[in-house]
Amino acid sequence: MNPPLPRTRLATPALILDQPALERNIITMANWAKENGIVLRPHAKTHKSGEIARRQIAAGAIGICCAKIGEAEALAEEGIADILITSPVVSAVAIERLAALRRRLARLAIVVDHPSNVARLADMVGEEGLEVLVDLDVGSHRTGVTSAAAAVELAQRIVSSSRLRYRGVQFYCGGLQHVPTVEARRAALAERASYLKAILAALSSAGLTAEVVTGGGTGSFAIDAELGVLKELQPGSYIFMDRQYLDCERAGPQFETSLFIDSRVVSANTPGCVTVDAGLKAMATEAGTPRVVAGADEVSQYIFMGDEHGLLITPDGREDPSLDQQITLLTPHCDPTVNLYDRYTVCDGGEVLGYWPVSARGRSS
Amino acid sequence: MNPPLPRTRLATPALILDQPALERNIITMANWAKENGIVLRPHAKTHKSGEIARRQIAAGAIGICCAKIGEAEALAEEGIADILITSPVVSAVAIERLAALRRRLARLAIVVDHPSNVARLADMVGEEGLEVLVDLDVGSHRTGVTSAAAAVELAQRIVSSSRLRYRGVQFYCGGLQHVPTVEARRAALAERASYLKAILAALSSAGLTAEVVTGGGTGSFAIDAELGVLKELQPGSYIFMDRQYLDCERAGPQFETSLFIDSRVVSANTPGCVTVDAGLKAMATEAGTPRVVAGADEVSQYIFMGDEHGLLITPDGREDPSLDQQITLLTPHCDPTVNLYDRYTVCDGGEVLGYWPVSARGRSS
Repeated sequence: MNPPLPRTRLATPALILDQPALERNIITMANWAKENGIVLRPHAKTHKSGEIARRQIAAGAIGICCAKIGEAEALAEEGIADILITSPVVSAVAIERLAALRRRLARLAIVVDHPSNVARLADMVGEEGLEVLVDLDVGSHRTGVTSAAAAVELAQRIVSSSRLRYRGVQFYCGGLQHVPTVEARRAALAERASYLKAILAALSSAGLTAEVVTGGGTGSFAIDAELGVLKELQPGSYIFMDRQYLDCERAGPQFETSLFIDSRVVSANTPGCVTVDAGLKAMATEAGTPRVVAGADEVSQYIFMGDEHGLLITPDGREDPSLDQQITLLTPHCDPTVNLYDRYTVCDGGEVLGYWPVSARGRSS
Repeated sequence: MNPPLPRTRLATPALILDQPALERNIITMANWAKENGIVLRPHAKTHKSGEIARRQIAAGAIGICCAKIGEAEALAEEGIADILITSPVVSAVAIERLAALRRRLARLAIVVDHPSNVARLADMVGEEGLEVLVDLDVGSHRTGVTSAAAAVELAQRIVSSSRLRYRGVQFYCGGLQHVPTVEARRAALAERASYLKAILAALSSAGLTAEVVTGGGTGSFAIDAELGVLKELQPGSYIFMDRQYLDCERAGPQFETSLFIDSRVVSANTPGCVTVDAGLKAMATEAGTPRVVAGADEVSQYIFMGDEHGLLITPDGREDPSLDQQITLLTPHCDPTVNLYDRYTVCDGGEVLGYWPVSARGRSS
């Protein structure tokens, strides 16, 4: 074994994961869930990593969520045995893979939002059967059925198939996770929770009581627990805490940032700005810009400058970083940023401990 | 060998490359360059593929450009022997790799924009030496020296090192490639070309005549040739033609779109819109939205709906696509979209011919 590599020797840009902070975040959430008597099923779309999923489960999570069949296959390959796929799987080619995946897992659940999808799953899923949740549209029209009547009808179709096992509903308010203030977020979530309650009541009246009521995220989990309608929570980003979440007021237990991008100054010819080697191939671009954490003034402003570069504007009166200076950035949006890297560079402060593969990177199909 | 797979059987989202259209684009550009007596060195940051680079060279390109050392390493691994790295490589760890790469290639050139970088390259590059170009700031302050005097001084430093071989300059007007009209683009490029001419004259006066004057892109190459200052052109996107370029008026020979994303409808519960399985993990997000090419009304509007989904709004009075309908999208910006996929699904119309690896995907460091 070689002596540990210092972070200063890394090729940049590099995706840095601070392991002690990560481990503390995992424990904090698991303990909070236990204390609140709520089931924790973290969303693996955030990390795409068997190493992290295993740690979440060891700390008390019941299993994980995956966004797509490819993500679930990659994490099953890493030994994860209990997975909920949180968006509908509709094509015949994908359902063939779902049936194969079912045979490898202790437990696989899927959401549905359309009668023809229920029929195709029932036809194709095989003898092992499948756990099925009715996906509810929370109002964004991304996925889900759009009324209590449609939820009841779909649940009835699931129940009437011998191959499918009706388990409950999914209700994920993705659009409310980043409402800036806790007060406004709570009000919006409370309104949505009352809509969800009405659907659950309609299901119960039809003899279709939802055993699983799953949803929630890093911005809502503590409020969801207060509201008391969800029985299972799917937070993902709490393990990393990206700039998007740090910009919002937080409710519940606090988490630390554990995910960073190490970059370097590769051009320094114009007073007032330098160019770093991390551009739009180094981080997600749909959620604003990264923030400087170390190596340059923290008030420096980052501007995307194409695939491979970013311009860092030094605040007035401060000194520009020099050529080759290493600069640590806070990721704007963690999930799609992680998707750009083959591996995490696992660190403890300034020391590189090793590498973890981003096993489900690129597994969008 | 199995019978060819129809595109309708693909797992989605899939990155589709229409091989006949690609091959025609490669030939069109190579022939145009020959007719115009200009050296062609296509930029591989667009495709990140040995298969495509080999075809470009076979058609007449002198070699390729790469954006970063990692991209160059990946394509050297695929047998590409003549590479220009178009952004400065400054860190000691990266220059160690550069020296190793130099030993494997017939020809490797690098750009520099800082005296301390020249000194470090001269120290570290080894006996094989290295071809070096002075990178000129075109006004965006991304990389490059910012005056004729600085260019002359840097060229002198290169010449005075026995290990480095001064070859000329790079002048890439990235910010002008997408000026919408040809007239406005020509005016802006002409102004920049006169600035470049002044620098070249200053270099010649100092006995540092630039043998290589490289730059240009898909939006500018025909105008660059008219202006007659660049001697080598670096276009990348002409092989694919993404939505960004199709939105601009074009000068010179015409190219066809050869790159697409095949997606599927995975939710169809709300009249007037459907959800497809291609979101911000399936395409670059910094250059607007994709356009529908097939499977739904071409005037449908796409809205990003998170990592894995997009909402497709059907124009008034048209029928919504049905669940599981395959929908082909035109990529907004090709380079960072390709970077999200492990492979091209190589097609001829509706038939899958095979797969080509995106060998330099993720090679940003």
